[in-house]
Amino acid sequence: MTVTIIGVGLMGGSLAISLREKQLAKHIIGVDRSEAHLKKAMSLGLIDEYCSLSEAIKKSTLVVIAVPVDEMMLLLPEIMNSITDHVVMDMGSTKETLQNAIAGNPKRGRFVPTHPMWGTEYSGPEAAVSGAFINKAVVICNAAEADNDALALVKNLYQKIGMHIVYMEAPAHDLHAAYVSHISHITSFALANTVLEKEKEDDAIFAIASAGFESTVRLAKSNPEMWVPIFKQNRENVLDVLNEHIAQLKKFRSCLEKENYIYLKELIEHANGISRIIE
Amino acid sequence: MTVTIIGVGLMGGSLAISLREKQLAKHIIGVDRSEAHLKKAMSLGLIDEYCSLSEAIKKSTLVVIAVPVDEMMLLLPEIMNSITDHVVMDMGSTKETLQNAIAGNPKRGRFVPTHPMWGTEYSGPEAAVSGAFINKAVVICNAAEADNDALALVKNLYQKIGMHIVYMEAPAHDLHAAYVSHISHITSFALANTVLEKEKEDDAIFAIASAGFESTVRLAKSNPEMWVPIFKQNRENVLDVLNEHIAQLKKFRSCLEKENYIYLKELIEHANGISRIIE
Repeated sequence: MTVTIIGVGLMGGSLAISLREKQLAKHIIGVDRSEAHLKKAMSLGLIDEYCSLSEAIKKSTLVVIAVPVDEMMLLLPEIMNSITDHVVMDMGSTKETLQNAIAGNPKRGRFVPTHPMWGTEYSGPEAAVSGAFINKAVVICNAAEADNDALALVKNLYQKIGMHIVYMEAPAHDLHAAYVSHISHITSFALANTVLEKEKEDDAIFAIASAGFESTVRLAKSNPEMWVPIFKQNRENVLDVLNEHIAQLKKFRSCLEKENYIYLKELIEHANGISRIIE
Repeated sequence: MTVTIIGVGLMGGSLAISLREKQLAKHIIGVDRSEAHLKKAMSLGLIDEYCSLSEAIKKSTLVVIAVPVDEMMLLLPEIMNSITDHVVMDMGSTKETLQNAIAGNPKRGRFVPTHPMWGTEYSGPEAAVSGAFINKAVVICNAAEADNDALALVKNLYQKIGMHIVYMEAPAHDLHAAYVSHISHITSFALANTVLEKEKEDDAIFAIASAGFESTVRLAKSNPEMWVPIFKQNRENVLDVLNEHIAQLKKFRSCLEKENYIYLKELIEHANGISRIIE
């Protein structure tokens, strides 16, 4: 099939590589508001051609939207008005705002909201990598509202590129994403700012930065153009998790202030429970 | 030379592997309060024999202390009383308490306080790995107080196993370690507890955990036997950094509460500056 990918950055570009490797697309068309990105995506072999959105839709079976979630809200009505029997899917990190925007659309059944749980701290076509989605989860939201053939096409695509599918309604997705993705980015941004604040007066501080530090701050390199709209759309869930996280940090502070090392040990032992979840 | 390694866990075991690979030790003796660890270290080939501390010291040129920093404080006087012209070094994560304990000791010159900036979230002899220290920094503290030959032996050892040496006085080390290592562990422990708290009511939450989440919580698997004494010994620095980190998180919370997305973007752009520091 011919696939249009709108947004040829980290997510769209990596999907293009996977689709090609698995021979799921015989022709890939790029659409992007940045001509530099389109040219780069051509030179990297991510896409076969680029053209206007309306032209691209005409030539395609599947339309993939892989742009920041605020741009998504502007693009989606235009796309839904332009399609006939196309299948449309997004790859965005928030789902309730999107779900509300698409509900009642006469073409609702053609759209499959998805969120592949993969990403890196890098962005742009150069950030696209091979094998990105293998053994990762992808959330398909409100599956019952998609036409059977549209859902089947999207399921098949994600399974062929190595993902396992998790079904959720949009509000549950946004809550869970706040816990296992969005808060990690805020803690990482805040940790980077904590240490950069200190660096102003002491530029030797990074001479001894280790892998543990790098692990906890690497997400702080993530692109604000992508993340501000996510935090905006998922504001209430993110605020709830952030409040809980600050409360948890204050427990550690209180232990240190009061020199309560018994409770400090209990807090750490409880945190060790995370090894049930991650390898 | 014959080397005694006290504490045949993650750090001591990994050092044993490196010493052997670089042919820096022809015989390695293990000392550990856990006989199970010693047997495991033997079966893994980390050590050639194990025996009592006093016997081990008699047979050795170099004595390496790689135990939690609270045990270090108990062991060090005994070791310093037992040595003649031995070289003694530690591998601990805090230095000021240690420095105060050793100051004025008649054998002070034989002791070189060091902190290799490498570790993982795992512990015990099974956690020891090959190539652990390559291209990492090691801090040598208060180098002027060590005898020239002792310092030369330790420098040579670390350089041969691939480390670059950073010299610091103990208080500066502890401050910097709080910023680039200790706080990362607290944020990771607290993030794990934040999410585990939610899991109680919603066990599906981890179905969609991604690499970004794993990156920020992996340190939460770290051993409390090691970390509580570090936080205790470095309490004041860790409290300062933790207060700053909570203040930084509150800036993000305030942006979300007030829907100030302009300032939120600025905070993230500032955090992106961390890419000057880490690759």
